[in-house]
Amino acid sequence: MSQATNPLVGVIMGSKSDWETMRHACEMLESFDVPYEKRVVSAHRTPAWMNEYATTAQERGLKIIIAGAGGAAHLPGMVASQTTLPVLGVPVKSRALSGLDSLLSIVQMPGGIPVGTLAIGDAGAKNAALLAVRILGTTDPALQTRLQAFQEEQTNKVLEDSEL
Amino acid sequence: MSQATNPLVGVIMGSKSDWETMRHACEMLESFDVPYEKRVVSAHRTPAWMNEYATTAQERGLKIIIAGAGGAAHLPGMVASQTTLPVLGVPVKSRALSGLDSLLSIVQMPGGIPVGTLAIGDAGAKNAALLAVRILGTTDPALQTRLQAFQEEQTNKVLEDSEL
Amino acid sequence: MSQATNPLVGVIMGSKSDWETMRHACEMLESFDVPYEKRVVSAHRTPAWMNEYATTAQERGLKIIIAGAGGAAHLPGMVASQTTLPVLGVPVKSRALSGLDSLLSIVQMPGGIPVGTLAIGDAGAKNAALLAVRILGTTDPALQTRLQAFQEEQTNKVLEDSEL
Amino acid sequence: MSQATNPLVGVIMGSKSDWETMRHACEMLESFDVPYEKRVVSAHRTPAWMNEYATTAQERGLKIIIAGAGGAAHLPGMVASQTTLPVLGVPVKSRALSGLDSLLSIVQMPGGIPVGTLAIGDAGAKNAALLAVRILGTTDPALQTRLQAFQEEQTNKVLEDSEL
Amino acid sequence: MSQATNPLVGVIMGSKSDWETMRHACEMLESFDVPYEKRVVSAHRTPAWMNEYATTAQERGLKIIIAGAGGAAHLPGMVASQTTLPVLGVPVKSRALSGLDSLLSIVQMPGGIPVGTLAIGDAGAKNAALLAVRILGTTDPALQTRLQAFQEEQTNKVLEDSEL
Amino acid sequence: MSQATNPLVGVIMGSKSDWETMRHACEMLESFDVPYEKRVVSAHRTPAWMNEYATTAQERGLKIIIAGAGGAAHLPGMVASQTTLPVLGVPVKSRALSGLDSLLSIVQMPGGIPVGTLAIGDAGAKNAALLAVRILGTTDPALQTRLQAFQEEQTNKVLEDSEL
Amino acid sequence: MSQATNPLVGVIMGSKSDWETMRHACEMLESFDVPYEKRVVSAHRTPAWMNEYATTAQERGLKIIIAGAGGAAHLPGMVASQTTLPVLGVPVKSRALSGLDSLLSIVQMPGGIPVGTLAIGDAGAKNAALLAVRILGTTDPALQTRLQAFQEEQTNKVLEDSEL
Amino acid sequence: MSQATNPLVGVIMGSKSDWETMRHACEMLESFDVPYEKRVVSAHRTPAWMNEYATTAQERGLKIIIAGAGGAAHLPGMVASQTTLPVLGVPVKSRALSGLDSLLSIVQMPGGIPVGTLAIGDAGAKNAALLAVRILGTTDPALQTRLQAFQEEQTNKVLEDSEL
Repeated sequence: MSQATNPLVGVIMGSKSDWETMRHACEMLESFDVPYEKRVVSAHRTPAWMNEYATTAQERGLKIIIAGAGGAAHLPGMVASQTTLPVLGVPVKSRALSGLDSLLSIVQMPGGIPVGTLAIGDAGAKNAALLAVRILGTTDPALQTRLQAFQEEQTNKVLEDSEL
Repeated sequence: MSQATNPLVGVIMGSKSDWETMRHACEMLESFDVPYEKRVVSAHRTPAWMNEYATTAQERGLKIIIAGAGGAAHLPGMVASQTTLPVLGVPVKSRALSGLDSLLSIVQMPGGIPVGTLAIGDAGAKNAALLAVRILGTTDPALQTRLQAFQEEQTNKVLEDSEL
Repeated sequence: MSQATNPLVGVIMGSKSDWETMRHACEMLESFDVPYEKRVVSAHRTPAWMNEYATTAQERGLKIIIAGAGGAAHLPGMVASQTTLPVLGVPVKSRALSGLDSLLSIVQMPGGIPVGTLAIGDAGAKNAALLAVRILGTTDPALQTRLQAFQEEQTNKVLEDSEL
Repeated sequence: MSQATNPLVGVIMGSKSDWETMRHACEMLESFDVPYEKRVVSAHRTPAWMNEYATTAQERGLKIIIAGAGGAAHLPGMVASQTTLPVLGVPVKSRALSGLDSLLSIVQMPGGIPVGTLAIGDAGAKNAALLAVRILGTTDPALQTRLQAFQEEQTNKVLEDSEL
Repeated sequence: MSQATNPLVGVIMGSKSDWETMRHACEMLESFDVPYEKRVVSAHRTPAWMNEYATTAQERGLKIIIAGAGGAAHLPGMVASQTTLPVLGVPVKSRALSGLDSLLSIVQMPGGIPVGTLAIGDAGAKNAALLAVRILGTTDPALQTRLQAFQEEQTNKVLEDSEL
Repeated sequence: MSQATNPLVGVIMGSKSDWETMRHACEMLESFDVPYEKRVVSAHRTPAWMNEYATTAQERGLKIIIAGAGGAAHLPGMVASQTTLPVLGVPVKSRALSGLDSLLSIVQMPGGIPVGTLAIGDAGAKNAALLAVRILGTTDPALQTRLQAFQEEQTNKVLEDSEL
Repeated sequence: MSQATNPLVGVIMGSKSDWETMRHACEMLESFDVPYEKRVVSAHRTPAWMNEYATTAQERGLKIIIAGAGGAAHLPGMVASQTTLPVLGVPVKSRALSGLDSLLSIVQMPGGIPVGTLAIGDAGAKNAALLAVRILGTTDPALQTRLQAFQEEQTNKVLEDSEL
Repeated sequence: MSQATNPLVGVIMGSKSDWETMRHACEMLESFDVPYEKRVVSAHRTPAWMNEYATTAQERGLKIIIAGAGGAAHLPGMVASQTTLPVLGVPVKSRALSGLDSLLSIVQMPGGIPVGTLAIGDAGAKNAALLAVRILGTTDPALQTRLQAFQEEQTNKVLEDSEL
């Protein structure tokens, strides 16, 4: 899975073990030919680098950051607090509490610092990428077209399979 | 509170009683001079109009839809399923379950249809608007500048008040 | 598993993966010789068809709709908002939150649009069918008789097995 | 609030204090001119009468039973186990756990005995009545017509008030 | 596993599948030589027999009833409402909600009808039996002695194994 | 509210602020003329006295201990671990989590040390007393008679008030 | 309320509104004559200052940091990730979810970065200070003595008030 | 795994089955060469020994107690109530409720008796040890140095692995 030289989307995650979830975001971005980069950036174990990542994201040309984390998931909110780019958060399913802790840690941000939060787990990772594509599509007609085709195809697949 | 003739953001809510929450989104958009429109659009009581609202949003020039709802909150997800615009969801605090039902109904979308979900209640409404501004700011340098000023001001206000 | 030509009950579900749960509804309907149809109808991926299904259900002769879905489960509520037929909702067990999200998304409907909600998972699917049979039985003496026989048989089976 | 001589719907509740919630069911039934009766029937304090109520409901001409209760809410399920009429359950908001206990006690019935469960509190009471009307409306064209008028009126009220 | 001719404790459960949990209660009673009987008594599928069981328990010589059930667990509360014997409830672990529904359905009884509730699952079954023995022990010195021996032995087993 | 010289029931609570809840237990015991004592005994602030209270309860003639506590409620379980008397636990409603923490801290005891747990709050306090009366009633025919009268009266009060 | 020139404990909180909770920590520290400082330090609104605060805390002579925050409460964990001082977290009660979100956001830290978490709200703030005093007391005999006196006094106060 | 002759940290757990979790604490302490002891000490099955352990811990030279327990987890709080040493609590994942009960039983202590609580399960055990090391490190420069090396190494490991 190669990465783009001029990525528009940064996909980051708090731990290598989050990759099993977050790869669904990357695969979706690839299917739309959206250039992205992916990194492990840990709020708790690499705070300095997280700060650097967040504060330089915009000047490096990123348009959107997708951040996944589990448990006391601080990555999405802390990145959002250090950039003015839109940040999308993916709650990774946690061992004990099945991601309820991840979800609340990401979504319950105080007024002033927004994180657009998606569902717990794989569906959330996939949808974070799709929301990024929707955002980019608001100013990129070609992407918009592909997005509509994706949605239609998705509809058709259900319709074809509607008979049980 | 006037509304724009060429709104970029559509702020919709499932019931008039959600206005007390959702006005925080509108006030934030106004403070950034982002043109917006606001409407009560009920997934359950006006499904046909919701469908029309969602399917025509893009051609009417909207770039982002902010949807707030409480309880079994279907509005954000159902609008997202009928547009390719980015949809941001605000879980309104519900009477019995304090918005936990609203949150789960909005955020736990299946893979394929994303809703960027914000916090329960006022903070979420405010942040939905800020996330919309961040999205618009990725292609609008003037808005980007204002956004950075907002963030700095917010920082300064805390710093000034840091002594207790 | 054949389907009826003049179905009285429509069994729909948001995704093919819900069939493992919803087939318990169909099997129960069959055991009562209640004609039914079954379809995958996705609120989020096939909203137009869902609207069509809901709005035409009555004229096609359906008396009751059973709708199962998981996660942010909007199908039962959205169908209920576009028909005046009784709609029964089955919360399918979800991966992360075990169906608590499905349950709250289905049952916490606002005043005005009712969904009669059953238990999470297989028991709920089975009971949705039984509730449909009870409803039909209020005006169908033959069905009523069979229903009473079912209940007695169920009682007898427990009584016979009561010794451990 | 008078009661019908030949009631079609029995509205029962576990305690007099549930009346503040359950009167919304009665008011809705009245607005549709559906004859009903209302009683306090406590699963725990009047089990014998509950049994009598449940087992004689059908022969007394009732078509549907609406049962509301809070906390460890056993009334709807216990009535459902002693009749073959459709039983609709309303979880009354409880003091400590806001009705989450009532909801789970009512909705999580085992396979074999269905209770169609509505939302916690007033909305649930209102919707239990509406679901009863929908059920009766499947075989009563006049009621069906009124139900459609109700739904349209409800839609129109939102549309008229859509401007904020 | 034989049953006593003059049982002091009645161990009942809502379904045969609860036996895997409830056998821990029976084994504990046996280890104390407390005569007991065990039965499947379903609140929902055999309400008439449950009523008979509850109302005749005292005259048959039972001193305590232990009732286990899962999901919308009505058995303990309904038995308690039809006897003046002490009733102890065991929440059986349920499939979707891990017994949280069972627990709340059993413990949240309204003022007037008590159910002494134990932990979810095996530990609860074991402890229901122990609580029954404690109750019987208040008037049976021999049992009291055995109970103290049990507790000491339990302590000693931990102390011996305290080194890791 | 006087206390008995030879109390059969010890009503203890973790803090003076629990009295508002626990007085319902005392009032109920008084209405049955059951001699009792009441004390503040804090597991955390007076552990030595708690140990003394628990270990001497039986020799002082107590037959049952009722213990109420809130939050991380350790009193019932810790007393149960130091006596072989039956211990009944009352989860007092806590400020932040409404007694869910109290309930789980009391009811989820490991196998070996039982606490018969009642509902959160006032109903639980009242029922702890009633369960104590039921226990005492198994060997006290006079109390048994009064208990049956209580239950009948309770039934009659509902029946008289059944009309709304 | 004056602050020490050479503080040993830093009491920080995410927002001015947290002061109502966190002042209980400061009052407790004062009652033990432990020098402390107090500041509003927002993880989300003043991330740069938070980083500075955390990274310089040790060289400034602080021994312990107490951090209180509500909702998606990232302050304690983010400070802990940038210091090797012990960090104690206080979950402030949040509006919608009563501090359950605050608690999970603070306590569920991944292995590698510890936050010693106290109870939600006032009790937690008071106890964070007491835990700090206990930590300092392990190497400060005078403080240890005062701590034991505090604990005894606390015990005595309960004992004196034990009669109700 | 040998144990120190002059341990500074006491690692205790409520049951032998907690060792699978608590060994992560011991391994971490060993990696820092912090002398410790480890024991099974059950609040419920060995209350007398727990009292002895807690009251003599300080005179035996312990500086910190780490206590792990599951379900109605009373060990950390009860030990904290009988010592003035800092007590750190580890909620062990429980069978039915995944450690939510353990967490609430440990963290929700009343004002006056603090328990510094860590995450549910292995991460919490590891972090309890790390927090103990941080506490000891505030007065032990050599340990402080090792702690900083640990944190740097942890950072480096993530940085090296940051590419996916």
